[in-house]
Amino acid sequence: MRFLHTADWHIGKKLHGYDLLEEQVDAFQQILAIAKTEQVDAIVVAGDLYDRSVPSVEAIEVFNRMIVEMNLEEQFPVLAISGNHDSSTRLETGGPWFVQSNFHLNTRLDQAFEPVEMNNTQFFLLPYFEPISARLYFENDEIRTIEQAMKEVVSAMEKQFKPDMAHVLVSHFFVAGSEKSDSETKLMVGGLDTVPLTLLNSFDYVALGHLHGKNALQAENARYSGSPLKFSLSEMNQKKGVWLVDTDASDTTFTFKEITPLRDVMQIEGSFKELTAQAFYTSIDRENYLQIQLTDRAVIPNMMNQLRQIYPRVIGVERLFGREERQKKSETKKSIKTLAPTELVDQFFSEVTGEALTQQQQTWIKDNLAEIHQTERGK
Amino acid sequence: MRFLHTADWHIGKKLHGYDLLEEQVDAFQQILAIAKTEQVDAIVVAGDLYDRSVPSVEAIEVFNRMIVEMNLEEQFPVLAISGNHDSSTRLETGGPWFVQSNFHLNTRLDQAFEPVEMNNTQFFLLPYFEPISARLYFENDEIRTIEQAMKEVVSAMEKQFKPDMAHVLVSHFFVAGSEKSDSETKLMVGGLDTVPLTLLNSFDYVALGHLHGKNALQAENARYSGSPLKFSLSEMNQKKGVWLVDTDASDTTFTFKEITPLRDVMQIEGSFKELTAQAFYTSIDRENYLQIQLTDRAVIPNMMNQLRQIYPRVIGVERLFGREERQKKSETKKSIKTLAPTELVDQFFSEVTGEALTQQQQTWIKDNLAEIHQTERGK
Repeated sequence: MRFLHTADWHIGKKLHGYDLLEEQVDAFQQILAIAKTEQVDAIVVAGDLYDRSVPSVEAIEVFNRMIVEMNLEEQFPVLAISGNHDSSTRLETGGPWFVQSNFHLNTRLDQAFEPVEMNNTQFFLLPYFEPISARLYFENDEIRTIEQAMKEVVSAMEKQFKPDMAHVLVSHFFVAGSEKSDSETKLMVGGLDTVPLTLLNSFDYVALGHLHGKNALQAENARYSGSPLKFSLSEMNQKKGVWLVDTDASDTTFTFKEITPLRDVMQIEGSFKELTAQAFYTSIDRENYLQIQLTDRAVIPNMMNQLRQIYPRVIGVERLFGREERQKKSETKKSIKTLAPTELVDQFFSEVTGEALTQQQQTWIKDNLAEIHQTERGK
Repeated sequence: MRFLHTADWHIGKKLHGYDLLEEQVDAFQQILAIAKTEQVDAIVVAGDLYDRSVPSVEAIEVFNRMIVEMNLEEQFPVLAISGNHDSSTRLETGGPWFVQSNFHLNTRLDQAFEPVEMNNTQFFLLPYFEPISARLYFENDEIRTIEQAMKEVVSAMEKQFKPDMAHVLVSHFFVAGSEKSDSETKLMVGGLDTVPLTLLNSFDYVALGHLHGKNALQAENARYSGSPLKFSLSEMNQKKGVWLVDTDASDTTFTFKEITPLRDVMQIEGSFKELTAQAFYTSIDRENYLQIQLTDRAVIPNMMNQLRQIYPRVIGVERLFGREERQKKSETKKSIKTLAPTELVDQFFSEVTGEALTQQQQTWIKDNLAEIHQTERGK
């Protein structure tokens, strides 16, 4: 059988204050298009469907729409698990009805031991879990780490193996040897959360979620799909997409299918003068999420506002060679007289932190200045 | 056809800090038992399934279990709407799958105009909505109140009426002429949220939610079911239960079926000495939620702790004749030396406010005192 492997949708995630829902819907539509073109028999989503345990109403609306389209309208069987970003209980709502239309959404450890059988393949859907859950489930007080837990988990799964079928594990954890990027929350420290790849040998394919780069793990029988979008600057150079996995042949094969983001995350470098020159900014996609590497050392009054007028989605500004410190004071003094209060705060913030204000921070400042202004007038 | 009409479950609600989930599960089991004994064709739940728009994980677990049992296991068709306490979007999750097993859960105004037809009856499931939704749906800027909206809503529904069928409206609002109790949040002021009963004349039965007393409205064709449990002291004397409604006869008939709470809400009155006498407290159900009406005027050191040792669920203490003020100071001074810090706070609070600390407040105080104690020792 042929299935599509994706993960880490993180619906509702924001990038430096920018809402990504539009990009997420677009990426989802591309995933669905790949599933249709490639005529897959199922779509596997390996955890972190939402970005937060209590998603916003907007995120829920988008996610609900996606699963309706994928499962009820396009009638794809869906095999999904909860990840560490999801609240398993909140995500569980509706689960017992979903199975009626071949939408299997496992959120509890005990569900992992009843494989979903489709065509020639057994799917073991193992949601993200803490060692304590395995301790209770196996009634084994010795279990303290995910590695210890996984020995028991895999052994229990192997007992369900049908020899004439392919065996696929869908799971969401950190496999030894894989690399992390900035946008995966570092909940665990040390090796407590790590599963050695050798433990997963008996599976024909392990569809992983958790890490956001498709190359985080290079193994014969295991892959991270990565997230469908770049969720941090450290993912800037990653290619995003999904795996197409075939378990029809005697060997399992997998191919990567790329997704083109609606708006990319990229970095531009140059002097303020260069970056604000029309010849330059009309040559690139200004709608992208941009990290700006500034070569100037001089203080630039009202810099962020000027940059944002050209580049609406600046996620950060870095001064590659630092800032000139000597003349700063007098220059700032001069400019203070000509700047609006919001511009002053913006400039102060970016000079002190080297980073740009997020949209939310800008809104706060604007609202608070307006309030102060009103209070002053009211006196 | 015969259906059961309930509403205002408020899953997750607390009563003066006490968790009611156990009582809510018990009441639900009684509702289910009635549905089975009376062989109803459907269960109608007229809104406020949850107590809060973002329910706790514990509340979600309980609610999910209930709907699985009611609809999937016992196979009752369920006709439900969201109320003003529910987040319509959050509650909507799973809805498109629920209908596969005859669980209709309407959360949007536009869903109200496609009646669910069962046996001889058309059910119009109208979720709680704000006038703005009707303004947008009907593209009518004149709509400013629920009354104005309901004129349009009813008129649109009447166009769907099949003359040979009975017509039932399931809705969640304040109908003119009904009485409120303390546990319904007063979100609206004035008459903006009120629907005149006459507007609902064309329905054979209006299954209402919102008010917690079954007698809140006396009408030939409309009833509040009330909540399955007493959610405030003002509901102390209400009988709780569900309506059994028959639309089989030419006239619609309804009968009330009572629910016996696992723990009742009641009031006891007497002097501290009387109420703490074994002969008295063994004569009543001490597990109930108790409002204590105290006839003493004297200061009683450590009163709340003593009462709670006998009555574990005190929801309030009222001094019927006030407190003696004169000797208070010296008496308090005396007792101060013999009381633990937590007891002192407890006593002070109840003397100042006349009310008992909730469980949550007690926990806060205990934690904070422990923290202060640790900080002091750390110095």
